[in-house]
Amino acid sequence: MPVNLSAPVAADLLPVAGVELGVAEAGIKRANRKDLLVIRLCEGATVAGVFTTNRFCAAPVTVAKQHLAAAQDIRALVVNTGNANAGTGEPGMAAARATCSELAHLLGLAPEQVLPYSTGVIMEPLPVEKIVAGLPQAIADLKADNWFDAAQAIMTTDIVAKAVSRQVSIGGRTITVTGMSKGSGMIHPNMATMLGYIATDAAVAQPLLQKMVRDAADCSFNCISVDGDTSTNDALMLMATGQSEVVIDAANRAALQTVINEVATLLAQAIVRDGEGATKFITIRIEGGHSEAECKQIGYAIAHSPLVKTAFFASDPNLGRILAAIGYAGITDLDVAALQVYLDDVLVTEQGGRAASYREEDGARVMQQSDITIRVVLNRGTASATLWTCDFSYDYVKINASYRS
Amino acid sequence: MPVNLSAPVAADLLPVAGVELGVAEAGIKRANRKDLLVIRLCEGATVAGVFTTNRFCAAPVTVAKQHLAAAQDIRALVVNTGNANAGTGEPGMAAARATCSELAHLLGLAPEQVLPYSTGVIMEPLPVEKIVAGLPQAIADLKADNWFDAAQAIMTTDIVAKAVSRQVSIGGRTITVTGMSKGSGMIHPNMATMLGYIATDAAVAQPLLQKMVRDAADCSFNCISVDGDTSTNDALMLMATGQSEVVIDAANRAALQTVINEVATLLAQAIVRDGEGATKFITIRIEGGHSEAECKQIGYAIAHSPLVKTAFFASDPNLGRILAAIGYAGITDLDVAALQVYLDDVLVTEQGGRAASYREEDGARVMQQSDITIRVVLNRGTASATLWTCDFSYDYVKINASYRS
Repeated sequence: MPVNLSAPVAADLLPVAGVELGVAEAGIKRANRKDLLVIRLCEGATVAGVFTTNRFCAAPVTVAKQHLAAAQDIRALVVNTGNANAGTGEPGMAAARATCSELAHLLGLAPEQVLPYSTGVIMEPLPVEKIVAGLPQAIADLKADNWFDAAQAIMTTDIVAKAVSRQVSIGGRTITVTGMSKGSGMIHPNMATMLGYIATDAAVAQPLLQKMVRDAADCSFNCISVDGDTSTNDALMLMATGQSEVVIDAANRAALQTVINEVATLLAQAIVRDGEGATKFITIRIEGGHSEAECKQIGYAIAHSPLVKTAFFASDPNLGRILAAIGYAGITDLDVAALQVYLDDVLVTEQGGRAASYREEDGARVMQQSDITIRVVLNRGTASATLWTCDFSYDYVKINASYRS
Repeated sequence: MPVNLSAPVAADLLPVAGVELGVAEAGIKRANRKDLLVIRLCEGATVAGVFTTNRFCAAPVTVAKQHLAAAQDIRALVVNTGNANAGTGEPGMAAARATCSELAHLLGLAPEQVLPYSTGVIMEPLPVEKIVAGLPQAIADLKADNWFDAAQAIMTTDIVAKAVSRQVSIGGRTITVTGMSKGSGMIHPNMATMLGYIATDAAVAQPLLQKMVRDAADCSFNCISVDGDTSTNDALMLMATGQSEVVIDAANRAALQTVINEVATLLAQAIVRDGEGATKFITIRIEGGHSEAECKQIGYAIAHSPLVKTAFFASDPNLGRILAAIGYAGITDLDVAALQVYLDDVLVTEQGGRAASYREEDGARVMQQSDITIRVVLNRGTASATLWTCDFSYDYVKINASYRS
């Protein structure tokens, strides 16, 4: 079950003027399931995105990047679940392009004005005919007040939908930011996440929007890991409709960036809280490093250790496994005698060994919680990084040993 | 249960002249269990070893390296299970030195002539008094024909003991090589493995012996992974007693190196076959790379992917997960359209997607086997690498969620 994460309430998800969403049951993998989403943007909207660095990136990722580079006026996005259209070679590219062409035809656009996204099983042909057949249903459903259904339509092994809204006042006007994400496994984003969509009614020129989505990804989706597997299909998209008539520039960017980062972070954390089989939400905070990269390297070594993750599942303060992970993280000049490790507020390790003040019952008490922070203080610099991960349970194995069947 | 791995037969383990082994039940973690081993070497023996690169390396690793550097005449090794003496700071160093001093005293040696090893739980104080109390029992048990008991005495979560003997004729004389290892979890050796001891009655000068142990580690223990966690205590030791009176030099080294590598490889593979919760033994062969390092990088990305490992546990040919792992391995200029992926002899992937000839039933058939080879042909160079790993099962989680309690 998701760790301290409830499904969003439909009424809490604020429409973003200029964004309409429509869903359909296209029967891509199973019948009677929302599995197709169309997002239509108003004229003049800008779109920016960051994508997976996986070399086996999916066909829709390649097509979306091409269309983003070719067209300044993206007007629609189309997302299917049930099939990743990754590891599908040239036929996969043709299928992604056919999807865009059909939606463009139905909406009176050019194919390059449409961006495609897929998520699901890898290396199986995309059933493009089912998607094409479902598009009219999704288009008929297009409405601004539809983020709740949209967040459900992009789920795969997710247990709950992930969406959140925030508002911020800029120049005396209210700007809305609403976003949604999906993802639960194959989560170790590297540039973006599985799928994330954030929209705002601010007006943001595309080059600035690209910087803003990169910043948002780096502090949110690029700081989470469920299983260390970087997906073939990761994409985080930021859409700005301009309907609020508030123009964002370098001078007033910070207020909007802050709220976009907050939305992105909540959506990214929601993926970890709904991580496959998760029973614990673990914040890993590394402080006092030479560089942020070094802090992340140590943090991910802890986050990816199956031994650390199973100990958290067992609520067992077998904390030597954290030391082992710090030790093999690859920082060859790390002085382990100089660092401290905390579990929440409990000092666990100092001077290369167990802290004199540490009592097993204190560690055991913290391990019982569902939200836990591991804090490592390196005492060799001023950089820091915060990552989020989850534990490793029987259900992780169960979900992934049976996902495809 | 171990994958196609039986316990060694005592009669198959050949004594190595000049090596005596003695075990004891010291009650380090549990009563009535062999948990202490002493190895005594004849005068004139040479010893070489490679150790973990984990920065949180155990106290006995540090002491063993110091003693190896200080003394040219190592005469005894002492190994305890039940406690890793890692993450124990200065008290841990004192405990490792006290163990050496006591054994040296009992055997009439200098403390620097003794090398200590520990394996077990991390960050708990070593009960040095129990070890000291057990040493006389182990010394009383010293005999050449004792490799079977010795291999049992160094087990932790291992289900079966791991030991093997080989003989080779050099210069018309028979040379014996006998080795043993332990390890089942926290297995991603980086320079050596959890614990491995190989002895020969050849005469090998220490500098050459050091080269030979490095070569043996690089083709065996440095090519396995159970869970991607590099231990704090890894050590592979090679001992040469010279009792055969066959002197090894550059000219006749190859014959001995070959058999030592074979013994090391069998011992390393045995650790994977007995990997925690393993139901499948997976050979990962990467061919046609620019460099061996690149091949290993891709191989380990596959070997460490929880999604790949759970698919193998399920015998589910969800092979897109292998493509995803190849794609995120970090080879930024990899042309995924140029590579092929095989499952045993079945061509799975070519031209960036599923091979035209691939049939699901062929993949399903191979996945039913307990020994499976994943072969990736990169078609961009002449380098290759072979790694061995296992799958990820419910029992892995069970073992590691309950190991310490």
